[in-house]
Amino acid sequence: VNPPVAPWDDRGLLLGDGLFETLLWVDGQIRCLDAHLARLTAGCRTLGLPAPDLEAAARLCRAAPGEAGLEGGRAAVRLTLTAGSGGRGLDRPAAPAIRLVARAAAATPITTPADLVLARTRRNEGSPAARLKTLSYLDNVLARAEALAAGVDEAVMLNNRGELACAAAANLFWIVDDALFTPALSCGVLNGIVRARVLAKAAALGVETRVVATGVAALEGAQAAFLTNSLIGVRPVRRFEGRSYAPHGLIARLAVGI
Amino acid sequence: VNPPVAPWDDRGLLLGDGLFETLLWVDGQIRCLDAHLARLTAGCRTLGLPAPDLEAAARLCRAAPGEAGLEGGRAAVRLTLTAGSGGRGLDRPAAPAIRLVARAAAATPITTPADLVLARTRRNEGSPAARLKTLSYLDNVLARAEALAAGVDEAVMLNNRGELACAAAANLFWIVDDALFTPALSCGVLNGIVRARVLAKAAALGVETRVVATGVAALEGAQAAFLTNSLIGVRPVRRFEGRSYAPHGLIARLAVGI
Repeated sequence: VNPPVAPWDDRGLLLGDGLFETLLWVDGQIRCLDAHLARLTAGCRTLGLPAPDLEAAARLCRAAPGEAGLEGGRAAVRLTLTAGSGGRGLDRPAAPAIRLVARAAAATPITTPADLVLARTRRNEGSPAARLKTLSYLDNVLARAEALAAGVDEAVMLNNRGELACAAAANLFWIVDDALFTPALSCGVLNGIVRARVLAKAAALGVETRVVATGVAALEGAQAAFLTNSLIGVRPVRRFEGRSYAPHGLIARLAVGI
Repeated sequence: VNPPVAPWDDRGLLLGDGLFETLLWVDGQIRCLDAHLARLTAGCRTLGLPAPDLEAAARLCRAAPGEAGLEGGRAAVRLTLTAGSGGRGLDRPAAPAIRLVARAAAATPITTPADLVLARTRRNEGSPAARLKTLSYLDNVLARAEALAAGVDEAVMLNNRGELACAAAANLFWIVDDALFTPALSCGVLNGIVRARVLAKAAALGVETRVVATGVAALEGAQAAFLTNSLIGVRPVRRFEGRSYAPHGLIARLAVGI
C-alpha cells in the first residue's frame, strides 16, 4: 500500500536526492514495466543509492491506479524513489534506507501536435543527473514554465555548449532527407524508454538513424520533428519558434505500436 | 508549529520545486534572519513562486530549536519552502500554495581547516537555479559524495565552461598577493550571505577584492583559500588536490565578527 505522506527528514524532499519513473497504465496493464524498473535500478547505481526491491516496486505501481479510484482506461503511474530519511546537511547516512511510493492519475491521450519554443534554461551536461529522471527536476519545471508563458506546449532545452538536448518532459527527434536524428545522451539527455524503442524501430525499418551533438540550427533546418515520452508516445511537432513543420510519413510509421 | 510530514503530492518532494535557507541559531538568536528571508523572497521571485509570509517564516524558524528539544547552544535551522501540492506533471497549479517548514539540529562549530578535491560533477551556469539554494540539490549531493569518497571534507565545483564556482555547500575564496578573489555569481554561484559579508568587510578593510570568472589554475596558484557559509562562517582551506596552503593573516582578519 502506498503511504499518503513523507516525513520532513526525507532527502528527496530536502535535497532532491532520488529518482522517478513515469509509467503508462492502460486497462489494468503497465507498459514496459521491466524497462522502467531496469532504468530505475541503473539510476540508483549511478547515484550511489541501494537498488530498489523490484517486486515491491512493481506491486506499488500496480496498486496505485486502484488507490486513486481508477478502474480502467488510461493513467499515468509515477513511481518515486527517495534516498530516504537522513540527518542535517548533504551527506547521506552510512546505509540509506530508500523510500518507494507510486501514485496514479488519469491521463487522457494527447492527439494534437506540439508547438515549441527555445528555453533559456539549460541542461547541465556536466552532471550525471542530467541523464536521469531525478527528483532534482527544477530546471525542467523552469523550462516548461517558459513554454507555458509563451503560450505553447513544450520547450526545447540546449545544454551549456549550445547543443540540442531534449524538451522539458520529452526526448526530441527530427528528420532530414528521410534520416532520423536525436541528441546523444552525452548532451545531457534522459535515456528515454520510448527514445530507445523509436531508435530500434527506425533501424528495423531500414531508416538511417544518427545520434548527434549539434546546435539549434539542425532543428530549424529539419523537415519534420517529434517528441517522445512514455505518456505521449510519439507526438509530432507543428512549430518551433518561427519554423513550421509539415506532417511526415516516417513519424506515423515510427509511432505504430510504440 | 512545524508539521512532521508532507503529502506525497508536494512539488518539493516530486520535482525539487522549492527553496531552502540554512540559518545559524546561537543561544536563542537566529543570525542574519532578515538577510535569509530577503534571499528566500528573491528566490521565489526568480522561480515564479509567491513570496512567503515573512512573519510566519520567522515564527517557524524560532520555534524549530525548541521543537527539536534544544534549549541553548548552537544549532542549524533549515527553513524549507516548497511550491506546495500539485497535480501530475511539471506544470504548477494556477495559484500555487507554498508550504513552509523549519527544522533544527544541534551544530557543533567546525574548527579544523578543510581539505578539498575537484569534483567531476559540474554547476549548471545556464540555469537560474544554480544561483539559488533550491530543493533540486542533487548536483551538490553528488559533489559532496565525491569529496567523502576521496576522504576529504569538501569538493570544488567547476561550471561547464571550466570556471571555478563554489564548493558543494560553501562559497569559495582565495588570496593572491593580498588581494581577495571569489567566483562571480554568473559562474553558477549561490549568492551567499556570508560571501556578501566577507566581500563587504574586505572592502571596508581596504583589501582589493576581485569577483572573477576563471579556471582552476587560479586556485592552484593562490597563496591561501577559504570557504564560507552560514554555519562554518569562514573556514580556511588546508589542501586542494595536490596543493597545500599556509595559514594567512587576512583570513583571520576577515573571520572576526562574521
